[in-house]
Amino acid sequence: MPFEFKATSFIGSSRGAETGKTFTAFSPETGEAVGPEFHSATKDDLIRSCLQASIASNLLYRKSGQEKAELLRRIASNLEERKADLVERASLETGLPNARFEGETARTCGQLRMFADLVEDGSWVDARIDTADPDRKPLPKPDIRSMRKALGPVAVFCASNFPIAFSVAGGDTASAFAAGCPVIVNAHIAHPGTSEIAATAISEAVVECGFPDGTFSLLFSGDYEIGSALAAHPAIKAVGFTGSRAGGRALMDIVAKRVEPIPVFAEMSSVNPVFVLPGAAEERADEIAEGLFASFTLGYGQFCTKPGLAFIPGGERYAHIVDSLEGLSRRSTKSPLLTSGIRDSFIAKTAARGAPQTVAEGFAVDSCVFEATAEEFLRNRSLREEVFGPTTLAVSYGDADELEKIAEGLEGQLTATIHGTEEDVAEAGELISILEKKVGRIVFNGYPTGVEVCHSMVHGGPYPATSFPGTTSVGTRAIERFTKLVCYQDAPDSVLPDELKQGNPLGIVRMTDGETGRD
Amino acid sequence: MPFEFKATSFIGSSRGAETGKTFTAFSPETGEAVGPEFHSATKDDLIRSCLQASIASNLLYRKSGQEKAELLRRIASNLEERKADLVERASLETGLPNARFEGETARTCGQLRMFADLVEDGSWVDARIDTADPDRKPLPKPDIRSMRKALGPVAVFCASNFPIAFSVAGGDTASAFAAGCPVIVNAHIAHPGTSEIAATAISEAVVECGFPDGTFSLLFSGDYEIGSALAAHPAIKAVGFTGSRAGGRALMDIVAKRVEPIPVFAEMSSVNPVFVLPGAAEERADEIAEGLFASFTLGYGQFCTKPGLAFIPGGERYAHIVDSLEGLSRRSTKSPLLTSGIRDSFIAKTAARGAPQTVAEGFAVDSCVFEATAEEFLRNRSLREEVFGPTTLAVSYGDADELEKIAEGLEGQLTATIHGTEEDVAEAGELISILEKKVGRIVFNGYPTGVEVCHSMVHGGPYPATSFPGTTSVGTRAIERFTKLVCYQDAPDSVLPDELKQGNPLGIVRMTDGETGRD
Repeated sequence: MPFEFKATSFIGSSRGAETGKTFTAFSPETGEAVGPEFHSATKDDLIRSCLQASIASNLLYRKSGQEKAELLRRIASNLEERKADLVERASLETGLPNARFEGETARTCGQLRMFADLVEDGSWVDARIDTADPDRKPLPKPDIRSMRKALGPVAVFCASNFPIAFSVAGGDTASAFAAGCPVIVNAHIAHPGTSEIAATAISEAVVECGFPDGTFSLLFSGDYEIGSALAAHPAIKAVGFTGSRAGGRALMDIVAKRVEPIPVFAEMSSVNPVFVLPGAAEERADEIAEGLFASFTLGYGQFCTKPGLAFIPGGERYAHIVDSLEGLSRRSTKSPLLTSGIRDSFIAKTAARGAPQTVAEGFAVDSCVFEATAEEFLRNRSLREEVFGPTTLAVSYGDADELEKIAEGLEGQLTATIHGTEEDVAEAGELISILEKKVGRIVFNGYPTGVEVCHSMVHGGPYPATSFPGTTSVGTRAIERFTKLVCYQDAPDSVLPDELKQGNPLGIVRMTDGETGRD
Repeated sequence: MPFEFKATSFIGSSRGAETGKTFTAFSPETGEAVGPEFHSATKDDLIRSCLQASIASNLLYRKSGQEKAELLRRIASNLEERKADLVERASLETGLPNARFEGETARTCGQLRMFADLVEDGSWVDARIDTADPDRKPLPKPDIRSMRKALGPVAVFCASNFPIAFSVAGGDTASAFAAGCPVIVNAHIAHPGTSEIAATAISEAVVECGFPDGTFSLLFSGDYEIGSALAAHPAIKAVGFTGSRAGGRALMDIVAKRVEPIPVFAEMSSVNPVFVLPGAAEERADEIAEGLFASFTLGYGQFCTKPGLAFIPGGERYAHIVDSLEGLSRRSTKSPLLTSGIRDSFIAKTAARGAPQTVAEGFAVDSCVFEATAEEFLRNRSLREEVFGPTTLAVSYGDADELEKIAEGLEGQLTATIHGTEEDVAEAGELISILEKKVGRIVFNGYPTGVEVCHSMVHGGPYPATSFPGTTSVGTRAIERFTKLVCYQDAPDSVLPDELKQGNPLGIVRMTDGETGRD
């Protein structure tokens, strides 16, 4: 039996009004509207969801790591149960193939289980203890203990390009639940059906695991009104966002004007430069061309880590690599983009760079490769802008000095990639130093698409890549974003959270008088 | 030989212009101006300091933990060498006694050495390694390694009330240097002489330790112009601030409008409520009255952790405690406040609460105790505001429900204090839960003034106590504020920072495939 859409928001365990403005998804393949009509949340839905989240917050705060792990694992298994519906609907709403969403569902469930393991172990809270010394002079030393705890209700804004893994049940939601925060999701306008299926999986898990009503809400919205009001609502204590630079900045600006400003963790814009060094260009020109093409057209070029810039040593090897990229582009099939807006922006930006698109069905476009010299690149700032879709810009450069100058001029990036032989890399110390300041992740002899979900991953970087270069939205460190520090001075053991009790009943890794271990 | 003031800004190793607007310190004891005339930094001074900091940033980035530790320890020993001058001048400029600055200098040097130990050990960087698995299906697993690294030039805004420990060579500067960031200090207008002495100690240490020019600058300013321009300058990557709510919010607003917004770590405003529970009021009324009085008048009531609110069970015990507080207040000597502005604000706010001040010499005021019922407190929002200076508000309450209602209505705080017997505390679970969300530190049966400097300290809390409840400005975690995360994928060992090299040459604590230890 196929999934039956109710097409209304989720306000805790109840549903939103059927009186809000309606909107539909569109098929990128055909450009046609796809039913059903979804009802935007009303202002009343929004207020109810915030009120419930506030109340739930106090109860979630006391949930043990074990209880939170159960919730996260139940969400994962509920998603798996609904995988067929999820995959089919996501494919319909995005124009991306089913196989992609088989993978994305697995990634999403893997993320949820990673956070389940993390909170079950409990060491993530950064527990620290400095024991008392009543005999210290001139003043006795008190007993001080501290850890990270849940911050409060989090608003999660979904990504257009990852309808499962960076959306309703994605990394922001998983890390916020893991921290102990209720979540109110602002569903992405482009994939409401996928959102409703994922929201159903979460909503059922909340009930099944006995979590409080208001642990999770989801607001549909056909425009920006509800999202703006959500970020401005006093109940919300942090925002997670994945999307465009304009969208992220708009949220940052809204939040900066609140009576109580809150952190916005926005992952926004990145061109992900690839630096091909001379030895690598000489040794592996064909391999690099093929790898680069596969990376910038993966998901039709709609990944935040898409390599949108490739610096290649000028001369024969440059010509060879660019010829290969152009050949591969010409022979490739059309790419249906996620939305008409993304398609229009792609057409406008590629036309401005000199490659008008031919008319195509739905939101489809042709992939294309642009060229510039280093000099042109340095002169023309518009060449540094992200173009979302299947295109990259090949830039020919002269020597290491020129490459370093270019790197110094780049904005903050999620990633940078270096292709080099052992000798190339040994000589690239200066370039690497520059990139360490500019980017969240440096990839060696690989491609930036494909973000491993693990303890050490950094999906971050200086503005405009993200709003906080000290944080990441992928990997276990993502949980820290949704926490506050709390410290207890001379507290009786009975009052302390288990993580800080004298006997370390949870057996977690913690720092005691400067020494780190499981005691 | 007494310290010879040049009374100009420090622009790296050179000095600023003598053409800027001049200003002087004032003696809070007499209210009279105190020489010399200090020259405000010019716009050109500001630009030069930012340029130098940018250049220094690239060199500092590569300094080892050992090298940074040397710098921090040298600053500490240089401060100790100048202690007599520092203490005398700080006392002159603040009206606080010499003994206070003996202690504050020791605290400052202790902080510097704590960060030296921290970076010498090196484990603070949160190094994480996930090793490769080339055989993983469906895709091989790459090698991923990440850590915290310096963010770039930091602007530090000094506190009026801590001319040494939260100013030029204070916690923000120490933690920024420890992270590997150059610092540009915006000196506080009220203690330029103390600032120049501390800046000399740092400036000499920078040269003595062979650190790059531009590692440290200090800008004098007779108004807000230079500070605003500093926070807005593109070279600055983070701001540390300790001061008023209005001042911190003004900086947050400036930074939110930058092309590249940056984090402002502001520690602003807190009334530090004290909750006296019934058993404790019964058992230790006199002790609590004396302790509270000592705490709210310490440093003439000008600590950010001053207890400005005390909730006491209504009835006999309440009357007894308030009588004691009032008696102690009446018998106390006048308190010279730090500046005429602080005095004027104190006079206005205490007059509004019904206690007009008598005329006094310099910036002196009388300490005073105010009273309200819980009902009045809940009705009148102005009673929740911080009054900087030697005063507190005693609020009589009825029962635990009323106390919880009051706690729920409080803004974010640096601290909250609970006085309770074992039985009191056992019954205060709900109150403690509320406070965990609202405050950075909960003190049991003690006083909030006196902030221990250690690994576990949290001098933080939700807005308006600070701008980021996930951070602290005191203790070793303060270093994290001035860092970004950087991640290396499949990097050759030769390229990796020592902290991430396969053999763990520094022997630091790090997480490898989820296990934490010194390998």
